Amino acid sequence: MIDHSLNALPATEIAARVRAGSLRCEDIAQACLDRIDRREPTIHAWSFLDRDLVFRQARALDSQAERGPMHGVPVGVKDIIETFDMPTQMGSPIYRGYRTRSDASCVALLRAAGALILGKTVTCEFAGTTAGETTNPHNPSHTPGGSSSGSGAAVADCMAAVALGTQTGGSVQRPASYCGIVGYKPTFGLINRQGVKPAAESLDTVGLMARTVEDVELAMRVLTNAEPVGWLPQKTPVRVGVCRNYAWETAELATREAVDNAAAGLAKSGFSVSEVILPASFDDLPMARVIVNDFERARGMAFEWHTHRDLISASLAKTISNGFAIPRERYLDACMRVENCRKRLGDGFADVDVLLVPAAQGEAPLGLSETGNHRFQSIWTQLGTPAVTLPTHAGARGLPVGIQLVGAPYADNRLLAVAELVFRTLGRGPVVKY
Amino acid sequence: MIDHSLNALPATEIAARVRAGSLRCEDIAQACLDRIDRREPTIHAWSFLDRDLVFRQARALDSQAERGPMHGVPVGVKDIIETFDMPTQMGSPIYRGYRTRSDASCVALLRAAGALILGKTVTCEFAGTTAGETTNPHNPSHTPGGSSSGSGAAVADCMAAVALGTQTGGSVQRPASYCGIVGYKPTFGLINRQGVKPAAESLDTVGLMARTVEDVELAMRVLTNAEPVGWLPQKTPVRVGVCRNYAWETAELATREAVDNAAAGLAKSGFSVSEVILPASFDDLPMARVIVNDFERARGMAFEWHTHRDLISASLAKTISNGFAIPRERYLDACMRVENCRKRLGDGFADVDVLLVPAAQGEAPLGLSETGNHRFQSIWTQLGTPAVTLPTHAGARGLPVGIQLVGAPYADNRLLAVAELVFRTLGRGPVVKY
Repeated sequence: MIDHSLNALPATEIAARVRAGSLRCEDIAQACLDRIDRREPTIHAWSFLDRDLVFRQARALDSQAERGPMHGVPVGVKDIIETFDMPTQMGSPIYRGYRTRSDASCVALLRAAGALILGKTVTCEFAGTTAGETTNPHNPSHTPGGSSSGSGAAVADCMAAVALGTQTGGSVQRPASYCGIVGYKPTFGLINRQGVKPAAESLDTVGLMARTVEDVELAMRVLTNAEPVGWLPQKTPVRVGVCRNYAWETAELATREAVDNAAAGLAKSGFSVSEVILPASFDDLPMARVIVNDFERARGMAFEWHTHRDLISASLAKTISNGFAIPRERYLDACMRVENCRKRLGDGFADVDVLLVPAAQGEAPLGLSETGNHRFQSIWTQLGTPAVTLPTHAGARGLPVGIQLVGAPYADNRLLAVAELVFRTLGRGPVVKY
Repeated sequence: MIDHSLNALPATEIAARVRAGSLRCEDIAQACLDRIDRREPTIHAWSFLDRDLVFRQARALDSQAERGPMHGVPVGVKDIIETFDMPTQMGSPIYRGYRTRSDASCVALLRAAGALILGKTVTCEFAGTTAGETTNPHNPSHTPGGSSSGSGAAVADCMAAVALGTQTGGSVQRPASYCGIVGYKPTFGLINRQGVKPAAESLDTVGLMARTVEDVELAMRVLTNAEPVGWLPQKTPVRVGVCRNYAWETAELATREAVDNAAAGLAKSGFSVSEVILPASFDDLPMARVIVNDFERARGMAFEWHTHRDLISASLAKTISNGFAIPRERYLDACMRVENCRKRLGDGFADVDVLLVPAAQGEAPLGLSETGNHRFQSIWTQLGTPAVTLPTHAGARGLPVGIQLVGAPYADNRLLAVAELVFRTLGRGPVVKY
């Protein structure tokens, strides 16, 4: 995994060098493609990659004035996100070779800022749970997590600097934790979803994966028209609330140790660390999620269900079938429960800037057929909070283990600033080499 | 406008007759197409209609066992909603002739329940404010309202029994009020939006238009898997709260009289009618709407903006340009204000079942270039409440004037039940002839 060539540079550094005239986009493209040539037979991160198209984009960028702050930054796009010049296949045979007329909002905005769209990254079937063939760059016999499997693996393996993912349960944060990278899920709705195939639309959140916090912040700035986040001065201590009461006992030792160690490390470095207890009503969230997810997912797949049922995996077919059987009143009741939890969430941020929680249950599980469970990610998806996973720790099997920082809804700037400080303080986990 | 032929039957009656074997889908199709042949040169409700395709669908339905509770019901589909067998042109030259691979969720679900998809109805450009050429069936020199212009006019003119619309500001309720039909905007998110081109995604709501409350309820049942709404028994009086403090002074006389007359009529018929005052903080909503709408609309149109700017109308281009100039923090602040209003809304429903409010500023304005303002619809879109417009009154120019009933979020069943009772009590407005 150690790679100090151009393809391993962070996005901010690539953009700075291109801007300064010391680096050509074509050279970056070449470095990424070389890396992909070498590693893709093991990693299987890409569902579509056209070398000629990459070079054509790179040469066009080299021949132009700076388009924007991501000029030359190589980006991977999860394959449920539309691209006008590449197929969008959704991890499903139903959409084999499918081409759309336009780019999704997030792709169009990144392109307009100069990003080099490398290709489409492997997704689980319709961003669900049926895995593609992507492997974990730290150990190819382990899952990279999902459903943004290819995005996580491509960034972790230094094939791309930034990747777009989506999270309906835990599809950004879990692969980030398993692959040892930074995962950022903004406040619900903050990255526009036009052109992204819905999974469960009250939960679907477009997110970003990169190797540094600055890189996700750069892409986020482009997507949402923001000034650079001013990293917080540490004059007054940053207040971190550790939550250990939600599903804590189901976390593996590696995850509990990561959170405990991070809390201790931050306290030692001058952060104000306290314990935060999540309300007991949050225990309703997992059951409400099944209802909301299945009800919405069934309807989002109505056309495919009624016209191509034979091409839907057994597992997804079961979810859809469950979803169509849920009565409207039961769905509305679940929506109300989630909304009540959202209303109560504000209290949790009265005295802290961010929450520190597990990012995933533990290290990436062995095997490629399952992508791990979403217990530690999905409640934050339901609550609509921004969250950042940082690759700060490792487990006994030598695989990365992340920690997750959760911000108050709409406080994305503060969360990103704190995440950067925390990452500088704790540093990268022992197996994270880039 | 008086029309007692098959095409003027309500959806519930069509479905019942088809089920009983006393009516063929082909005859319904013929009646609707005859009506369209006669009136379309004046109304311009349709952006796409293929007579052969309609008959092929009808004959297929006639040859099959009952698919579901809407077997044979003729439906119009707003032209920002995808259909696999018809183009989706979005009221924009950018999408002239554009065909998608699949149906939107709402279309697929209606088809699976036996609906006969007649064609695509005229929409303002990308469901915005740039009008198409549709006229008001009550007087073709007046606007039908927008942006679901063709859906409203087609239903009012008895060309279709039911139509799908969408509302981001007031695009379902306003044409319903102007055209003299029933408009229903469910709780935000309740009708799945997969396959609907986003305008501003935190506001976009798929809605239904028909000539009776039972008909919107029937379609809603199909879309969301519900039992038929049990119409409320009137043993305990239904509680109606009249709101006259929000923008009341900007309503035309016809609208104020409609609300006053409805309140008096309901009180006389045994409803419990009280006055409800909306919180002063709701006055923030219109400004927040501009920010949220423009910020999101710009991003939803990112691809078109960067590749086909010359084909975007000047008015929409201005909105998009404004939207890209809004800083993220300003957008997040506006989102927070709206959310705070949502939190306070619950209080308004403590003592009432529904709110009674204006549906639109007044009668449909003269001329076809503007579709009217959304002041009286858009705050309910922002608040995510379900709402029903009923065609109960008329103005001095002889055009319909509706009233609007607003329910608590998630209480769609209760709202529909109350709306049916209110409609039975007040009856149709004097110019509404079907």
